[in-house]
Amino acid sequence: MRFGFGVDVGGTTVKIACFSEAGEILGKWEIPTVIAHGGKAILPDIAASIQNYMKTQGLRREDFIGVGVGVPGPTDDNGVVNGCHNLNWGVVDVKKLLAELLDCPVCVGNDANMAALGELWKGGGKGYRNMVLVTLGTGVGGGIILNGRPLNGAHGSAGEIGHIVINPHEKEPCNCGNYGCAEQYCSATGVVRMAKRFLESHDTDSVLRGAEDFTCKTVFDAAEAGDEAAKEILDQVYRYMGIFISSVCNTVDPEVVVIGGGVSRAGQPLLEGIRKYFSRHAFHPVKNTGFAIAILGNDAGAYGAFKLALDGTKLT
Amino acid sequence: MRFGFGVDVGGTTVKIACFSEAGEILGKWEIPTVIAHGGKAILPDIAASIQNYMKTQGLRREDFIGVGVGVPGPTDDNGVVNGCHNLNWGVVDVKKLLAELLDCPVCVGNDANMAALGELWKGGGKGYRNMVLVTLGTGVGGGIILNGRPLNGAHGSAGEIGHIVINPHEKEPCNCGNYGCAEQYCSATGVVRMAKRFLESHDTDSVLRGAEDFTCKTVFDAAEAGDEAAKEILDQVYRYMGIFISSVCNTVDPEVVVIGGGVSRAGQPLLEGIRKYFSRHAFHPVKNTGFAIAILGNDAGAYGAFKLALDGTKLT
Repeated sequence: MRFGFGVDVGGTTVKIACFSEAGEILGKWEIPTVIAHGGKAILPDIAASIQNYMKTQGLRREDFIGVGVGVPGPTDDNGVVNGCHNLNWGVVDVKKLLAELLDCPVCVGNDANMAALGELWKGGGKGYRNMVLVTLGTGVGGGIILNGRPLNGAHGSAGEIGHIVINPHEKEPCNCGNYGCAEQYCSATGVVRMAKRFLESHDTDSVLRGAEDFTCKTVFDAAEAGDEAAKEILDQVYRYMGIFISSVCNTVDPEVVVIGGGVSRAGQPLLEGIRKYFSRHAFHPVKNTGFAIAILGNDAGAYGAFKLALDGTKLT
Repeated sequence: MRFGFGVDVGGTTVKIACFSEAGEILGKWEIPTVIAHGGKAILPDIAASIQNYMKTQGLRREDFIGVGVGVPGPTDDNGVVNGCHNLNWGVVDVKKLLAELLDCPVCVGNDANMAALGELWKGGGKGYRNMVLVTLGTGVGGGIILNGRPLNGAHGSAGEIGHIVINPHEKEPCNCGNYGCAEQYCSATGVVRMAKRFLESHDTDSVLRGAEDFTCKTVFDAAEAGDEAAKEILDQVYRYMGIFISSVCNTVDPEVVVIGGGVSRAGQPLLEGIRKYFSRHAFHPVKNTGFAIAILGNDAGAYGAFKLALDGTKLT
C-alpha cells in the first residue's frame, strides 16, 4: 500500500501523521519543536522521526509517496517559508531541505491553508472545490481554497482574514496594534471582551455577572440556558461574524464556508447566528453560500499537508 | 496578421474593438444595446457588426482568433451568464450562442473582471500576475486576477467588493439596501455624501459651502487648492478607502492594486491618501502591496475580453 506523511509544525510540538494514499490515518504522533539555535533542528528532527517510523513499521521505500508540511508562517508557491516567528526561522527553503534529508518529494504550505485543504478533502468542506476556512479560536485565522488548491497570495498571506477591520470606530487596540479587527469580536477572547463590554453598559441580570473570569464557552452555555444578556451578547457577536464573513465571501465567492477553531464547538446555534447576519450583509448572489462546521480538529493540518503532497506528486 | 475582437456589453451601448494578436487596437466602435424582448437581439447584433467589420476591412477568416465578451452580470467558468438585469437577460449561454453565430471560439467573463484582466495585460497592472482592480466610479466595483486569470467565484460574484460592509454603525442605507457598504464612502457619490455630512457637522469655512450641487471633483479640486474642510473630508474618505482595500488585500494578497473609475482621475494624491491608511490597516506582510492607477479607461473591458479569448484559444 502506498503511503505518505502530513506534518503540521507548531511552535511547541510537531504533529506527524502517516496516511494511506486514500487518506486514512495509519499512525500519528507528536515530537517537540526545538526552536533553539534558529530552529535548525526542526527539519532534521522531522526527517529522523519519519525515517524511524518507516523502519519500525516496515514500510517500503518504493511505496513512499512523499511528505507535506504545514508551517506557521507565510509560504510561497515554491515551498520557501518567509519568516516564522514561532520557530525562530527567517527565510527557510523547507521544500528543498526536507527533500534532501528524506530523498522524497516534499510540498510545503501555510498551516492555516493546510487546515483548509484538509477540511476540503476529508472534513466539513468535503465534495467542494472552492472553500473558505474561518478559524475562530483564541485568535481568528483562515485559509482559502480555489479550484481545489490553496491560495498563497503574493506575500504568502492570502486568507489571513483575522485582521480585516470591521469596525472603524473601535477604541480598544487589537493584539496586532490595529483597531477594529475581526479578531476583536469573533475570536474566543473577542466574545469574552464583547460580553464584558455589554455587562458594563447594561443593567440586564445575567449569570455571567457572578462569574469573575468567564470564558467564551460560559457565554454560549449561558445563552443556551436562556440567559437574556448572554443571548444579546451572542447576537452582537453573530452580527460581527456575519459582516466579517460576508466581506470575505463578497471578495472570493466560495461555494462553502467552513467554521473551525474552539468557538466552532458551539455548533449549529453558531452557524444559525452567523447565517442570520451573513444573509443580511452578503451581496445578493453570495447570500446562498453554504456553511459547515469543521470536523477534523487538530488533525486538519496534517490531512491538508498530506493532500498537498499527494496533489503535488500527481502533477509532476 | 491574426486578429480578434473584444466586446464590452453595457446597458446602453456595446463597445467592440478589433485587436491584433499583440494587443493593438486596429479599430473600435459602438453599437446600441437593444434590451427590448428580453435582450434577444444583443448577441445577433454583435455578431452582425463583427461580420460586417471583417468584410469591410477585408480581414481573412483564417486569421480570426476569436471573440471575448464582457457582460454586466455574474458569469460562470463555462461562459454562461446568470442574470443581467441591465440587459433583461436571465440565464444566457453567451459562449455557445455567440460561437454558433460567428462560428469561432468565444470566451465570456464578467465586465469588471474583464476590465481587471485588461489593466493587467496592457494597463496599470502590466507585468503582474496577481492583481485586484478597484473601480471607484458612481458605484464601487472590482475584479480579481490570480495567476493571470480572472476569479469568477462559485456564484460568478468574486470581486464584487463594493458592498463589503466597512462601517457597522452606518445609519444611512446604501443603494443596495444594506448599511455601511464601501460604496457609501469610496464612490464618487460617497465622497459627496461624506462631504455634505462633514459640512453639516462642522463650522469650518469652505468653498464647498457656496456650491449647492458640488461633485466629487469639486471636493478634490478644493482640497488641491488648499481648502481645509475639503482636505479633512478627503482624509476621512482615504481612511475608509484604506480600510476597505486592506480588507480585500488581507483576503487575497495580490501583488498590486490598480485603482480605476472616475475617482481615479485624482491620480497621485488619491494613491498617497489611500496608501497612508492602507499601510496602517493592512496585515503586516501585505503592507507593501503595490498601487497603481488604471490607464485604459473605457477600453479596459474590451482589452480584457480579447485577452480572455486569446488565452482561451491558446489553452485549447
